[in-house]
Amino acid sequence: MERIKPRTLSGFMELLPGPQMQLERMMEILRRTYSLYGFTPLDTPAIESAEVLLAKGGGETEKQIYRFNKGDADLALRFDLTVPLAKYVALHANELSFPFRRYQIGKVYRGERAQRGRFREFYQADIDIIGDGKLDILNEAEIPSIIYKTFRTLGLSRFQIRVNNRKILNGFYAMEGLADKSGDIMRTVDKLDKIGPEKVGAILVEDCGLTETQRDEILRFISITGSNGEVLAALEGYAGRNETFDQGLGELKAVAGYLAQFGVPEENFAVDLTIARGLDYYTGTVYETTLLDHPEIGSVCSGGRYDNLAAYYTDRQLPGVGISIGLTRLFYVLGEQGLLNPALPTAPADALVLPMTADPGPAIAVATRLRGAGIRTQVYMEQKKFKQKMSYADKLGIPYAVLLGEDEIAAGKCSVKDLTTGVQVTVTPEEAAALIGAGAAEKARGAVILEK
Amino acid sequence: MERIKPRTLSGFMELLPGPQMQLERMMEILRRTYSLYGFTPLDTPAIESAEVLLAKGGGETEKQIYRFNKGDADLALRFDLTVPLAKYVALHANELSFPFRRYQIGKVYRGERAQRGRFREFYQADIDIIGDGKLDILNEAEIPSIIYKTFRTLGLSRFQIRVNNRKILNGFYAMEGLADKSGDIMRTVDKLDKIGPEKVGAILVEDCGLTETQRDEILRFISITGSNGEVLAALEGYAGRNETFDQGLGELKAVAGYLAQFGVPEENFAVDLTIARGLDYYTGTVYETTLLDHPEIGSVCSGGRYDNLAAYYTDRQLPGVGISIGLTRLFYVLGEQGLLNPALPTAPADALVLPMTADPGPAIAVATRLRGAGIRTQVYMEQKKFKQKMSYADKLGIPYAVLLGEDEIAAGKCSVKDLTTGVQVTVTPEEAAALIGAGAAEKARGAVILEK
Repeated sequence: MERIKPRTLSGFMELLPGPQMQLERMMEILRRTYSLYGFTPLDTPAIESAEVLLAKGGGETEKQIYRFNKGDADLALRFDLTVPLAKYVALHANELSFPFRRYQIGKVYRGERAQRGRFREFYQADIDIIGDGKLDILNEAEIPSIIYKTFRTLGLSRFQIRVNNRKILNGFYAMEGLADKSGDIMRTVDKLDKIGPEKVGAILVEDCGLTETQRDEILRFISITGSNGEVLAALEGYAGRNETFDQGLGELKAVAGYLAQFGVPEENFAVDLTIARGLDYYTGTVYETTLLDHPEIGSVCSGGRYDNLAAYYTDRQLPGVGISIGLTRLFYVLGEQGLLNPALPTAPADALVLPMTADPGPAIAVATRLRGAGIRTQVYMEQKKFKQKMSYADKLGIPYAVLLGEDEIAAGKCSVKDLTTGVQVTVTPEEAAALIGAGAAEKARGAVILEK
Repeated sequence: MERIKPRTLSGFMELLPGPQMQLERMMEILRRTYSLYGFTPLDTPAIESAEVLLAKGGGETEKQIYRFNKGDADLALRFDLTVPLAKYVALHANELSFPFRRYQIGKVYRGERAQRGRFREFYQADIDIIGDGKLDILNEAEIPSIIYKTFRTLGLSRFQIRVNNRKILNGFYAMEGLADKSGDIMRTVDKLDKIGPEKVGAILVEDCGLTETQRDEILRFISITGSNGEVLAALEGYAGRNETFDQGLGELKAVAGYLAQFGVPEENFAVDLTIARGLDYYTGTVYETTLLDHPEIGSVCSGGRYDNLAAYYTDRQLPGVGISIGLTRLFYVLGEQGLLNPALPTAPADALVLPMTADPGPAIAVATRLRGAGIRTQVYMEQKKFKQKMSYADKLGIPYAVLLGEDEIAAGKCSVKDLTTGVQVTVTPEEAAALIGAGAAEKARGAVILEK
């Protein structure tokens, strides 16, 4: 037979069982944390009508999209989870209760140029809160607490949720007579981390057409740093000159003000005037999250407030706030940096039951009882030498072997061998379940991400 | 602005939050059950090279497949989880330990003609056990116990796992001098349930070219019914005439023989000689699972033993056994038949905390404490009348409202209202967490599927 060489497409993550188990554990934490805050899980098709998906149209998106025909239908794979959410809410608005809080963890597709650490198929893990007509500022204040809880549960403490407000930026630019250039300015300021203030200043003058005074005002503004209280105090100095600015400052103070009640420590939160987020549709609070020891990773969780989620589909005003974790990229980077906890079990089972007699019946019966007690159990069923069976457990990292020889069977017992310590005890199946259950729980206690 | 009409493609399931929660619960049960048997979770790309995906080629598959170009690449969406598994195992064989046990719950794509209850994007939930060169018959014996445990955990007891062995069929046809027609005969016999024995007999003679004696032998063979013991005894009457038949009978007896140790009751298992499974690659035990009160649904879990998983990609002999649940279709049919337990909670939260004072701080603080105790908690943050807030909880089916008025705040307490009974108590946040936690656990106790 002529054979086809098996291969996985470049830019598509396909993990071996060990790393896959680590990724599953991260996903489970995200599902559980999002659920704790009252978000409902949602699942939308990966394929949509191209007309629907590209309603907004234009730009990078259209170039990267996977688009194709099937029969007469012009179809496309989703490139984020926000556009499908907008469609979903517009389509089902009359059947939903608002505020509508949903989470979605799903694959999205972008045919980017393949390069290391860039993926064409990747998971996003999003939450959004959508209001009907209005949405209280408190929702924007709640988001940092969800980010905080998520990353704490994943095992991190040295991270910072950086927050700004687009109204403050827009209001400030308006004060400087630069309202019509705010988009260009924000995109330029967004590069501050990468190129530094000098080059930002040069671009502002040369490309954006600002005067030197305007440039200096902007550079002075974005250089406001310090504790949250200090930054807010400095912003008060600009108050009273522009309504939008004042509104944004009020919102930012509200967001910062509720942190303690939401359980977010000061040190995990920073008002940062350099954050703008590229996307045009953000209108209020914007968020980025950076790992303090790994700034090179960039933001691992970003989002913001928008006034009109589904303007392309409906007249209905649907303001919202949301954040997104680029899960596949985050997982990849954590692995590259060696930050995934290697002590957490990645074995497919907690116990490998080895029949040592011709009749595997007693071993099967013990395995059935272990499973009844919630122990992930595999019976080794192949005709192999004892050494090979133990080597299988070892390679997979299965922590316990359960041996059923004639003596054990006659006594109604089984021998449990801890494959980490080598200690072996002969006990009843109930005792075996208790022992293995406790040991497996102990081994699974650590966090997914290790801070170094 | 010109608006695009929001719509979801026909044949693509998109659920409202309530049903989505039910589907999530089913998926969680599948993940947990498969894990109990030592299967490791796997995730492969939805897109593969068309050359790889269509290595086997031909037939219905090729017509239904979503295939498209991106740049120079000829791509396709996976139409099942088996071909990607074959590719995965062939590609990573040297990094895997065999037997390799994996589960995968993922979306697959088939551009079928759209009709009610047929989906173009649907979840399959598969398990497979792959051996390297050999795979013991015990693995085939274990599969019914996994099917049993899965459907019992979903809430069903009135279902039957129907089992046959392709070697018995092939051996029997060989005895009758019909070895070269076995494929045609199996496909015809497969229609027995739908068209009855008379029409099957007619097709066997007219289309398959059998003699009347051969037809009668086949009809007599497939009419062997009774208890498992009776069917196996009747099959003994054919033994000793064909090696393949005898081997198949030995396998079938082994599979039936270990049922009790695997914990599968007699009444949930039936040897059924009419089952063949259409797919050519099955070579041993084959499985179908039917709901006794809903035979019209057809098989809800099917699969079998195959000798060569990845022949299109590698010389390596990789025998295996696997089963698949067509999850989206099963979920759809259960919903249509009203078999999904409506008593199980589908609310996004267990508690809705209502601030009753101008400062929402105390309400937020209580919500943070409830979440710390694992309670799924939403704070209602919009400026609305009390009645509207309660109506929101009601519409979403949130079971408890937690009220924070001035009296409660002054006393360091909160009022918990059970929205099912209307009973309201004023307690400390710790007592509230205990009360709501116990109530939510109680409500979530039932099974997902209700038998009627």
